[in-house]
Amino acid sequence: MTGELMDAERTRVVVVGGGPAGLLLSHLLAADGVDHVVLEARTRTEIENTHRAGILEAASVQTLVDAGLDRVLREGDRHGGIDLRFDGEMHHIDLDALTGRSVWLYPQTQVFKDLADKRAADGGDVRYGARVTEVLDLDTAEPSVVYELDGVVRRLRADIVVGADGSRSVCRHLLPESVRRSYSTEYPYAWFGVIVEAPRSAPELVYTASEHGFALVSQRTPTHQRLYFQCSPDEDPAGWSDEQIWAELQRRVAGPDGFALKEGPVEERAVLRFRSSVVEPVRHGRMLLVGDAAHTVPPTGAKGLNLALADVVLLHDVLSTWFARGDAAHEELLDEYGVRAAHRVWRAQHFSAWMSRMLHSHPGESGFEARRRVAELRTLVESEAGRRFLAEGYTGWGPIITEGAK
Amino acid sequence: MTGELMDAERTRVVVVGGGPAGLLLSHLLAADGVDHVVLEARTRTEIENTHRAGILEAASVQTLVDAGLDRVLREGDRHGGIDLRFDGEMHHIDLDALTGRSVWLYPQTQVFKDLADKRAADGGDVRYGARVTEVLDLDTAEPSVVYELDGVVRRLRADIVVGADGSRSVCRHLLPESVRRSYSTEYPYAWFGVIVEAPRSAPELVYTASEHGFALVSQRTPTHQRLYFQCSPDEDPAGWSDEQIWAELQRRVAGPDGFALKEGPVEERAVLRFRSSVVEPVRHGRMLLVGDAAHTVPPTGAKGLNLALADVVLLHDVLSTWFARGDAAHEELLDEYGVRAAHRVWRAQHFSAWMSRMLHSHPGESGFEARRRVAELRTLVESEAGRRFLAEGYTGWGPIITEGAK
Repeated sequence: MTGELMDAERTRVVVVGGGPAGLLLSHLLAADGVDHVVLEARTRTEIENTHRAGILEAASVQTLVDAGLDRVLREGDRHGGIDLRFDGEMHHIDLDALTGRSVWLYPQTQVFKDLADKRAADGGDVRYGARVTEVLDLDTAEPSVVYELDGVVRRLRADIVVGADGSRSVCRHLLPESVRRSYSTEYPYAWFGVIVEAPRSAPELVYTASEHGFALVSQRTPTHQRLYFQCSPDEDPAGWSDEQIWAELQRRVAGPDGFALKEGPVEERAVLRFRSSVVEPVRHGRMLLVGDAAHTVPPTGAKGLNLALADVVLLHDVLSTWFARGDAAHEELLDEYGVRAAHRVWRAQHFSAWMSRMLHSHPGESGFEARRRVAELRTLVESEAGRRFLAEGYTGWGPIITEGAK
Repeated sequence: MTGELMDAERTRVVVVGGGPAGLLLSHLLAADGVDHVVLEARTRTEIENTHRAGILEAASVQTLVDAGLDRVLREGDRHGGIDLRFDGEMHHIDLDALTGRSVWLYPQTQVFKDLADKRAADGGDVRYGARVTEVLDLDTAEPSVVYELDGVVRRLRADIVVGADGSRSVCRHLLPESVRRSYSTEYPYAWFGVIVEAPRSAPELVYTASEHGFALVSQRTPTHQRLYFQCSPDEDPAGWSDEQIWAELQRRVAGPDGFALKEGPVEERAVLRFRSSVVEPVRHGRMLLVGDAAHTVPPTGAKGLNLALADVVLLHDVLSTWFARGDAAHEELLDEYGVRAAHRVWRAQHFSAWMSRMLHSHPGESGFEARRRVAELRTLVESEAGRRFLAEGYTGWGPIITEGAK
């Protein structure tokens, strides 16, 4: 096989993973005229049929618009606020007024579609169904990626390999044990997520803490809504009837104001696991990790996709400089990416863990903790500074490029 | 004995406990012309020789000044800010600029002394060395308190009994099990506190999070400073040499900025336990609980004394109305106190728990948690809203009387 691979194809960057992060990087590299190839194990159809929710920070939307992708502005739902609901009362967090920024409800699946269409239209080299089996020579100036496509094993030589291959990343595992630092935490709960056929129950997202546990009232289309409620991580979604699901959702959002969810048939259901994890360093030799390959966050606060896009913008910035210098002597420049990304990554880790812990009932939590959490929520919403601090985190702390650099 | 007590003395309010809370209430009742007696188990000398630190919120200082006690303004140290120190760097929280409020460093022992002197000067009936043995008939309109003073058992009949007898409250235990709700949490750490002979190391308090644990740099007088470092709850202070204490303190505050503590002989040392607790309801029949008798907080953020004084101001407000109506049919008016106090109590519980958890290393905490805490601190100090939110809690959320009422 080695002989067969000797005359491997050569490019400058191999992007492993063709999700939103990989495709955005591909777009940015193409705009710079940097020759590269994207390898994605799944087919386009498989990705497009995996429905994933998404809340885009203003900076993420700006990134997409800068890339010429403005469908989000027309078809996404701009949300100028969210509600925190506890003790059965709504507490509005006016993101617009507090931070000058808003968020967009725009499913991750649509972000993928926009980017995939754009890459296709621009003649991008995105190879779907290409399963990476080996990454070689990362410690040299010419690493290579071995992959299988249509039953044929091929090899791509490059200057740089980018691991944008998600939470089950192959690339992450190439970080040698001797340098790898892994940080993680588990949560004793998960989300039971449903898509239901019914008009929306609220105009904006409602993050609800109740004595029965957390619930999130979200939206999708005029005819369908997306709802979540806290459940055990090993809950079996098939074990719930529609009636049981509605009863559980309704009792979590119930309150003296009479707020109730609009009901309809449950069309999809799934359990979303919670996990926080960070791996460092995000560079090993000529390989760099972005997005979920480097870090995962629990879904509360929806930071995952935004972090991935922010990573890519930073990485692109660093790679541009590095390619411009064209000098392997500046190898250490590549470390800039990790240094600059870590600031936002850990901020988002804190924000996601904080939102999760503040809003969810911990199994077996004491009466003190349950009341302290409500007091925390109350102190936050009763303070303009508290609401603004929360809103800053929710909308993403402003410009994404400059802030990491100190 | 019952016969002997039949012709018991009669007053309107018996205040059990002559610490700052009990004495402040006594002062306020006296100003209203309400006949009352304070019973305190310890002698004045015992209380005055128990050195306790104290940070007074602006509202607490206002309460003292309103009571004619303005020594705090002359001899207390007004602090317009605090520092958060982590990753070996100082981060200033400008309380004045952020909230328009400051705090005063003024030991609790001095607050006691001011109030005790004032009560004595005004001819207040404060009976030191009076140990309460029984509280009777709380369910009636004429409860009574049995106490021992100078070897003689006496009885006081009253309209109202106030339990201001601190964290080891006798009165709290009179809440029947059937109505009592207790909330509490423990912390796996404590503070090793020392008073050392050396000039101050910093002009304002420095709350330090380090990989070796928490430390608090505080002040006392021009010649003595008060310092604390996180230790195990079962640490034996006698087991530490001065050199060991200084080494531990110095390594916690060390950083690239070269900050170091000014050393000198360790004159006093003690371990301060951490505990959060709340008991509800704070009224049972004709008895009401204030301050530590009703709730305790860990020392981080120094809310204990401030909460006690705020409780008393509220209770006095409610009692004034109740006495003015002079009608037992308005018994339920007494519940107003608990309803209004709970808001601040739980806010302070959250604040104290939050400050404690954010700043201390939890024994056995994961690398993720340690880094998340630093990210939390960084996110806070880098945001004006974050700093203000913290400063609001630290300085006590503004006026104390009106805010609890909704």
